[in-house]
Amino acid sequence: MTYVQGVNDTELEKCIRKILEYSVKTNKAIFKNQLFGCTDPYGLAGAWISEAFNTGQYTFEVAPAFTLIELKLLNHILNLFGIPNGDGIFSPGGSMSLLYGIVAARYKTFPEVKSKGMRALPELILFTSEDSHYSLRKAAHWLGFGTESVRYIKTNDRGQMITSELAKSIQEEKDAGRHPLLVNGTAGTTVLGAIDELDEIADLCKRHGVWFHVDACWGGSLILSRKYKNRLKGVEKADSISWNPHKMAGAPMQCSAFLIRDKGLLHEANSAAAKYLFQQDKFYDISYDTGDKSVDAFKLWVMWKARGDRGLSQLADHIMGLAEFCLETVSSRSGFRLVTAPLQCPNVCFWYIPKFMRGKEENEAWWEMMHKITPKIKELLTLSSRLMVAYSPLPKHKNFFRIAFTFHPVMDERQVLDMLQAIEECGEQVKPATL
Amino acid sequence: MTYVQGVNDTELEKCIRKILEYSVKTNKAIFKNQLFGCTDPYGLAGAWISEAFNTGQYTFEVAPAFTLIELKLLNHILNLFGIPNGDGIFSPGGSMSLLYGIVAARYKTFPEVKSKGMRALPELILFTSEDSHYSLRKAAHWLGFGTESVRYIKTNDRGQMITSELAKSIQEEKDAGRHPLLVNGTAGTTVLGAIDELDEIADLCKRHGVWFHVDACWGGSLILSRKYKNRLKGVEKADSISWNPHKMAGAPMQCSAFLIRDKGLLHEANSAAAKYLFQQDKFYDISYDTGDKSVDAFKLWVMWKARGDRGLSQLADHIMGLAEFCLETVSSRSGFRLVTAPLQCPNVCFWYIPKFMRGKEENEAWWEMMHKITPKIKELLTLSSRLMVAYSPLPKHKNFFRIAFTFHPVMDERQVLDMLQAIEECGEQVKPATL
Repeated sequence: MTYVQGVNDTELEKCIRKILEYSVKTNKAIFKNQLFGCTDPYGLAGAWISEAFNTGQYTFEVAPAFTLIELKLLNHILNLFGIPNGDGIFSPGGSMSLLYGIVAARYKTFPEVKSKGMRALPELILFTSEDSHYSLRKAAHWLGFGTESVRYIKTNDRGQMITSELAKSIQEEKDAGRHPLLVNGTAGTTVLGAIDELDEIADLCKRHGVWFHVDACWGGSLILSRKYKNRLKGVEKADSISWNPHKMAGAPMQCSAFLIRDKGLLHEANSAAAKYLFQQDKFYDISYDTGDKSVDAFKLWVMWKARGDRGLSQLADHIMGLAEFCLETVSSRSGFRLVTAPLQCPNVCFWYIPKFMRGKEENEAWWEMMHKITPKIKELLTLSSRLMVAYSPLPKHKNFFRIAFTFHPVMDERQVLDMLQAIEECGEQVKPATL
Repeated sequence: MTYVQGVNDTELEKCIRKILEYSVKTNKAIFKNQLFGCTDPYGLAGAWISEAFNTGQYTFEVAPAFTLIELKLLNHILNLFGIPNGDGIFSPGGSMSLLYGIVAARYKTFPEVKSKGMRALPELILFTSEDSHYSLRKAAHWLGFGTESVRYIKTNDRGQMITSELAKSIQEEKDAGRHPLLVNGTAGTTVLGAIDELDEIADLCKRHGVWFHVDACWGGSLILSRKYKNRLKGVEKADSISWNPHKMAGAPMQCSAFLIRDKGLLHEANSAAAKYLFQQDKFYDISYDTGDKSVDAFKLWVMWKARGDRGLSQLADHIMGLAEFCLETVSSRSGFRLVTAPLQCPNVCFWYIPKFMRGKEENEAWWEMMHKITPKIKELLTLSSRLMVAYSPLPKHKNFFRIAFTFHPVMDERQVLDMLQAIEECGEQVKPATL
């Protein structure tokens, strides 16, 4: 194999500048391709500092200050979500947080799983909405449930899990002698931004003795807003919650919190008793040896310290206002058509219908054409660097656009109008013959 | 709950400076507490850049340059480890890499596990050495095997898994009608730095049709050294490998590579077919939509670009030289006693025996005293800021010190002598009455 030589600093800089030139500038307001966007500059400063200090936060002795900050921040977050006596951890992402939730649920009901595995357990069933994130399916495979143990519950037109359907499904599983283990409610689905009826689902879960996990990776940031936090009503009844501040709230990636009501269960379910790493004969209070936790809390703490609850609330309100404005504009602007309303999370989903498509019968062939037009418009938008926007189909819908707003201190309504203008102009460049 | 106000930038800076004052400076040569240490400055620059660009690397369109760099780097690493046609991924840490390995092994032999779960499978057995990392135990729980399915194979005095014991254990499990699924070999145990007989174990696994995973999280960095890479002989026969460049090689955390021989299996085993996220109707080659991969590759690439294979090899040789020097000094310096020799990875393990303990019969009571003396010396070292060093017991040994060397461009033999001097001086401050 080739034995690669190092380059000098000048050469390295040239090379990196080239790479960055060809990289997507996710901080720009016109980056609307994902459920993350503009990085919070305070968060970035925090990330840089913790990178420089390179602390894995394995034990209190290695990261005394960072450990205390994480504990303080987690307490603040737990309070915010209404489970002040819970526990938490920063995990490497939403999928991992979900794994923590399922592992805790399984261990609480069947502690023997730790030593004896899934073969010793009855058939366990997981419930989630058909619009929820694919990480549950992946978790079902990884954790040894199998994907056949997942029940996908129908959603309504707004993308919310239909609670009566869930109730029916839980009862059916019980009647069939299977054990309903966990319901995964979603606060902010990936595409439509739907928030399930958390309050109702929580009560249903309680009645059936089923663990209630809320995937609030995207929508959880609404908890920061005094005005909008009631949209998450019921989340305080959850057994566990995952929230990714790196999404809507703009913390640098990765920043993903896993919260759990039952203090102690997190450690109990996950401890592998590595005494050679976590010695018991230390000269300080080893209850601060938080082991599995990570340094990702620090960057979020810096953001929070700088902006305060008030500042974060304002940022949330600001983008929800922009999303409302976008939705209203789309609903009244000719050529645009909303997929769903009213707004739940700041996701605005719509089609742009070019002039040559308007006023025709909207039959299957027409929709097949729309299915091709949306990606074509995206291509034109991307190649002209005017807007980078997501599109997606859903079981009920052909390809449509999704603009998801993330915390952005300087974005304004003018920029929203520019985006829609760009979509319209690129939409009108689409030629039927090229599809 | 309290509604926290933000602070101004001056206040924030003051606050952060205070935190950093009370934080452990892991970049210093006297930080020898963990299997990581001095961050590579090029790696740090890379980390800062990728943080600023905040790219999750979900798809090629969001991270075109970063994706290509990751692919190029992974190919280089796969070549280095001798599995040029394999596949790889950067994962959130060594525990996660091990999960990837076990999931792949399980899926390859029993693809039905994905849909039907562990209940549909025979009893599967995992093998690892008694000195190996606790992550296997945790994985056995998480993935639904149960910890009772783990067989801990005895190690020799140097900390290596005894291959003949492994062979016996595999045969016993087969005879009992259980299915030996995976052997986890270790290249660099946490404490002694032992490297299992990878070559022999690989052949044994092949004969029995058992998946061979190598946990090279710590010792894998020796592959960078032209002089020492033959210590990993046999790793090229592994089915999967985990390597954490954030440990010995000084890449900023997290930087953890998972490598797999069977190209395609990684995707096949883990895909959850999220078509709404990974659309098939894009205007570019979607084979670059690497989905699950992460941006952690970039910082490692910057280090590698700057230093080249040659520079990294020199850094590895440098610290192995320092470890050899440390080991030789410890073996001949009065009051010091080695736990094991010769050197495998750059871990030097030893006791310091204060003068009042010398020349006595080394019975159980004497060793119990040593067990208390080691932590006491560490306390004195830490509180005087002279050295932050790890100590640990092992089943065969009472508490002893471990100095593990990580890439450090400016560290020299004088600093090694200073460390030993500090241990000796603090050791002599220990008073029997205070134990």
